[in-house]
Amino acid sequence: MVIVMKLHSSPEQMEKVNSKLRENGFRTQMIQGVKRIVIGAVGDRQAINASQIETMTGVEKVLRIMKPYKMVCREVREEDTIVRVTGAEFGGPRLAVVAGPCAVETKDQLYAAARAVKQAGATVLRGGTYKPRTSPYSFQGLEEEGLHLLAEAGAATGLATVTEVVDEESMQIAARYVDILQIGARNMQNFRLLRLAGRAGKPILLKRGLSATVEEWLMAAEYIVCSGNENVILCERGIRTFETGTRNTLDLSAVALVKTLTHLPVIVDPSHATGKRELVGSMSRAAVAAGADGLIIEVHPDPSVALCDGPQSLDPGQFEGLMNTLRPLAAAVGREV
Amino acid sequence: MVIVMKLHSSPEQMEKVNSKLRENGFRTQMIQGVKRIVIGAVGDRQAINASQIETMTGVEKVLRIMKPYKMVCREVREEDTIVRVTGAEFGGPRLAVVAGPCAVETKDQLYAAARAVKQAGATVLRGGTYKPRTSPYSFQGLEEEGLHLLAEAGAATGLATVTEVVDEESMQIAARYVDILQIGARNMQNFRLLRLAGRAGKPILLKRGLSATVEEWLMAAEYIVCSGNENVILCERGIRTFETGTRNTLDLSAVALVKTLTHLPVIVDPSHATGKRELVGSMSRAAVAAGADGLIIEVHPDPSVALCDGPQSLDPGQFEGLMNTLRPLAAAVGREV
Amino acid sequence: MVIVMKLHSSPEQMEKVNSKLRENGFRTQMIQGVKRIVIGAVGDRQAINASQIETMTGVEKVLRIMKPYKMVCREVREEDTIVRVTGAEFGGPRLAVVAGPCAVETKDQLYAAARAVKQAGATVLRGGTYKPRTSPYSFQGLEEEGLHLLAEAGAATGLATVTEVVDEESMQIAARYVDILQIGARNMQNFRLLRLAGRAGKPILLKRGLSATVEEWLMAAEYIVCSGNENVILCERGIRTFETGTRNTLDLSAVALVKTLTHLPVIVDPSHATGKRELVGSMSRAAVAAGADGLIIEVHPDPSVALCDGPQSLDPGQFEGLMNTLRPLAAAVGREV
Amino acid sequence: MVIVMKLHSSPEQMEKVNSKLRENGFRTQMIQGVKRIVIGAVGDRQAINASQIETMTGVEKVLRIMKPYKMVCREVREEDTIVRVTGAEFGGPRLAVVAGPCAVETKDQLYAAARAVKQAGATVLRGGTYKPRTSPYSFQGLEEEGLHLLAEAGAATGLATVTEVVDEESMQIAARYVDILQIGARNMQNFRLLRLAGRAGKPILLKRGLSATVEEWLMAAEYIVCSGNENVILCERGIRTFETGTRNTLDLSAVALVKTLTHLPVIVDPSHATGKRELVGSMSRAAVAAGADGLIIEVHPDPSVALCDGPQSLDPGQFEGLMNTLRPLAAAVGREV
Repeated sequence: MVIVMKLHSSPEQMEKVNSKLRENGFRTQMIQGVKRIVIGAVGDRQAINASQIETMTGVEKVLRIMKPYKMVCREVREEDTIVRVTGAEFGGPRLAVVAGPCAVETKDQLYAAARAVKQAGATVLRGGTYKPRTSPYSFQGLEEEGLHLLAEAGAATGLATVTEVVDEESMQIAARYVDILQIGARNMQNFRLLRLAGRAGKPILLKRGLSATVEEWLMAAEYIVCSGNENVILCERGIRTFETGTRNTLDLSAVALVKTLTHLPVIVDPSHATGKRELVGSMSRAAVAAGADGLIIEVHPDPSVALCDGPQSLDPGQFEGLMNTLRPLAAAVGREV
Repeated sequence: MVIVMKLHSSPEQMEKVNSKLRENGFRTQMIQGVKRIVIGAVGDRQAINASQIETMTGVEKVLRIMKPYKMVCREVREEDTIVRVTGAEFGGPRLAVVAGPCAVETKDQLYAAARAVKQAGATVLRGGTYKPRTSPYSFQGLEEEGLHLLAEAGAATGLATVTEVVDEESMQIAARYVDILQIGARNMQNFRLLRLAGRAGKPILLKRGLSATVEEWLMAAEYIVCSGNENVILCERGIRTFETGTRNTLDLSAVALVKTLTHLPVIVDPSHATGKRELVGSMSRAAVAAGADGLIIEVHPDPSVALCDGPQSLDPGQFEGLMNTLRPLAAAVGREV
Repeated sequence: MVIVMKLHSSPEQMEKVNSKLRENGFRTQMIQGVKRIVIGAVGDRQAINASQIETMTGVEKVLRIMKPYKMVCREVREEDTIVRVTGAEFGGPRLAVVAGPCAVETKDQLYAAARAVKQAGATVLRGGTYKPRTSPYSFQGLEEEGLHLLAEAGAATGLATVTEVVDEESMQIAARYVDILQIGARNMQNFRLLRLAGRAGKPILLKRGLSATVEEWLMAAEYIVCSGNENVILCERGIRTFETGTRNTLDLSAVALVKTLTHLPVIVDPSHATGKRELVGSMSRAAVAAGADGLIIEVHPDPSVALCDGPQSLDPGQFEGLMNTLRPLAAAVGREV
Repeated sequence: MVIVMKLHSSPEQMEKVNSKLRENGFRTQMIQGVKRIVIGAVGDRQAINASQIETMTGVEKVLRIMKPYKMVCREVREEDTIVRVTGAEFGGPRLAVVAGPCAVETKDQLYAAARAVKQAGATVLRGGTYKPRTSPYSFQGLEEEGLHLLAEAGAATGLATVTEVVDEESMQIAARYVDILQIGARNMQNFRLLRLAGRAGKPILLKRGLSATVEEWLMAAEYIVCSGNENVILCERGIRTFETGTRNTLDLSAVALVKTLTHLPVIVDPSHATGKRELVGSMSRAAVAAGADGLIIEVHPDPSVALCDGPQSLDPGQFEGLMNTLRPLAAAVGREV
């Protein structure tokens, strides 16, 4: 059940509605839109009559949401949610471009990447410091030392920062250093981590699982939002199919579909989706044309020596070239870079 | 083995090379590029020494193609193949837009669709007359009667025409009426039909199979080309995955990948890929941004009464609106509509 | 609509019902069960009142079948259909074991295989003569010459025979030589071929398509049955998934599921499913335990020189070993080999 | 690199080898086989010459393992690993049958289930207490209260116990109550949890991820083993494919394949794989015939009121019936129940 408050309803009115719902056994969550407040309420619909709420002062209407995700669905908030961090926004008219190396390796490597992506027009710096790796024998990341470098490089270049977290400890540490916390594809249904993300106090970049349906992806976002954090950015990064010509299959129809189902911003990761540097440009352009709110792209000062994902990383020149092709394209769909 | 002839080599020189190869047990196929001729030769590489061919007059070089598809690969022809029909081309700077109803139902329905798509800027009219349907109890198409209407509607509006063929008989009949013969997803590995397509005398629109890899798709094209027909247009129409939110999963990374692997043109069918009218626009734009050479879109004068695929069909107004959004987008990637 | 005739109803009674249905625009099909006859009728349900039929002499009841497949569903016939050919049956208590080489190569190869599989207990000889190959440059089969050998080898050893057909011509020729016609995975939705199979006058072995759902598979069987041929044997041969450790993914739960949905027999092809000789034995045993009515297994006198599918072929000794393990297993599930 | 020690080599000899390897920068792990000890060593192969190790006293041979998983592969240990808990073993001649409810709901429900499955021949009791649920609004489990009940019910009936853990906290708590800790499909690549499982001091039941390849699954096991815990039981529970007729697609060929690749035991979960009660029996039998070392089956005293997964749960009578069919089948493949 979702309660839409009237424009100019008072905090007291909202609080009364909230109390009434809680008294009747509902769990509630406020969502502050640009224009109005809505209250999500989950519980036994038999416990209370919708008209009892609808007649309370300050209430405009009560919606029964049939979708399994209540807080993140379009019915609850028609306008797009815009997630803002220093110097960047996700979901507004300006596309967010996140770029940087797969893993933070050294200070020199990270600063070179940061300066290059800033120069070319990116607004957020990515860099992995806690790396989930298929093999226990692969490079696992610099952890807090890497976070320190990432925060410094962000500050030095004026870029916001994002890094992946993999458990409670890394989430707590990373929240002290970076602007956005990423939950990776393999943890998309790590429900404990999702609940912690609801209380992390930072925006969450939520990647779609390798074989997650659109509905499961939105349910994962629902976990975060209903735990208290409305600043969720969805990220399509390719799904697992029978096709082996690309690392994964980039599902751009999911991006267009998700934009109709949720008010949350959605970005696209063409690097992990394709696994091939030569396809990153065309898939970035396709993502923007499909309506994505931004991109996250792997850029390394020298991909040939990268500790991970070299074959899908752009070098600074390639990234700059890509950015130049994105500007007219964004304009053609009414956006800007 | 592929033999690249010199610029300005003579027909006699080519014929001598051809004869030599055939004498040594090779099957050969000429491919006439814009600038030069190449000869594809398949057989036992031990039977002849490459240098014996390389030293013949008129030969520029002999290539050993490692890919399983020999005639359709980029190594054989660097420039893009352009497939031309009256009033339209596939693979050139101008995007080909094919549009029309899923099935030819009545003269009124078809003419209304044809006039609408012509008006909005399409150059080829589609219409199914031999319908491969999952159920034997579903509408199976008007067959030759439908072809007659299709040819008339094409002539009346100045549109080229395309229809699906499903066996030898329908291919022979359809070849008398339409400009392009389509081989559908379910027949992509109907190898007998592919061989017949090689001798059909009309360009072939070859849809990707529901679970065909990029390599299998190109091998299917190879069947047609090595049987004598170089005018093959590839069409990505969505692959089968676990995702049920869309009818299929549109694989645009395959489009970008295929453009690097083959010289053949590639178009995209966003209607069958998504199965949802509201996603056709964004996926059309994404396809153009990804580098597709054209689109094939289902348009029905009144989708609510369509005999098949109504939920994914645009009405004339929606199609016109889509075409208007494609023009600036095409310009942004150096193409035109 | 399905009409179940009474036990001991007369041919005249049945013919009257049939005529009545046809007069009202229905297409009808008789299915002769062990105990009684049912009539499948497809058409406009408004055209006639079920009670008009139900009151006719000899009619026991009229069923409305909600499933999209009408003739092949369990509701129409409770008992299992048994498909019989000389010396073998599919769907009865005795398991059918089909074995032989992927392709008929030479007389010696085929006879060696035939004798070996007969000796070990197989009842049907398989051998490909029209081969659908991914590459146009691969061995395509001996065609009619191979059929001739196959018929001879079958006669010499007392084995029934099966071969794959790929179009109308091969179907007509093969029907003169072999006992069972196979429609391969890539042609499962070649609807023209399915309709022809309905009039082929021989039992049809219908392989499941690489990415066909169970429902689509049963609809393909429905095409054959509603075109006049009730002798359809289904064959699960692995589906296409993301897993690359095996050639395909053998879907034994589909076998168990299909046995609940249809009265048709279902066999399993562990050779194509796994693509690995060392897994054929365990998957054969698993198939029998899952309730399959038989197996189709690739056996070659010398797999190391096989023209196709050598890595998944058993040699005679391995096949005999496998058969020996099947006997106690079949007994444990109430079957025999 | 894997070092195989001689039969009767002394602890001192082994320790010397171990020290030498560590001095050269290798990480090492002992694996105690029935007959001999092997040492897994991961590091820079350039750092030391294999012959330097091979000539040390007590060393039989040094193997270079090409597979990415070193400790769990067959090359390291030819004989099957047997994981033992009170009253049950996984990997020995006797099949392990784990059974019980999806979730621990009440004392009555759990005891009824425990008594029924014990009576029918199960040796391990399953019961979820920390439930990973797709929706944040679904029942999430009784947590420690449920563990308490589970331990009591196990003790009362003489069954070993297993429950799923989802993070460090639940792992630590559960390790105090149950005999086996389960890592679920959605956490199969939660690498932090895998490392913790390596130090948990209890056997780990590792379910295959929904879209994990066999190689990724074995790499996940490698994480646990190389972190110090050799008692890993693999569990196939169905993979995600396009087929919607079953909840997942049970991949029994993976079971047979994995048995050739690793020495670890593998069991099968037919309940989650199929999602349909009526398929659990045939898939259980197929699993045993395929070579699985055991089964994990959902049993609820009254599936119609189960808080989760009712449609796939057997009632006590159905479970007993299934167990009765398993005995002759197990005997037919040389096992016992």
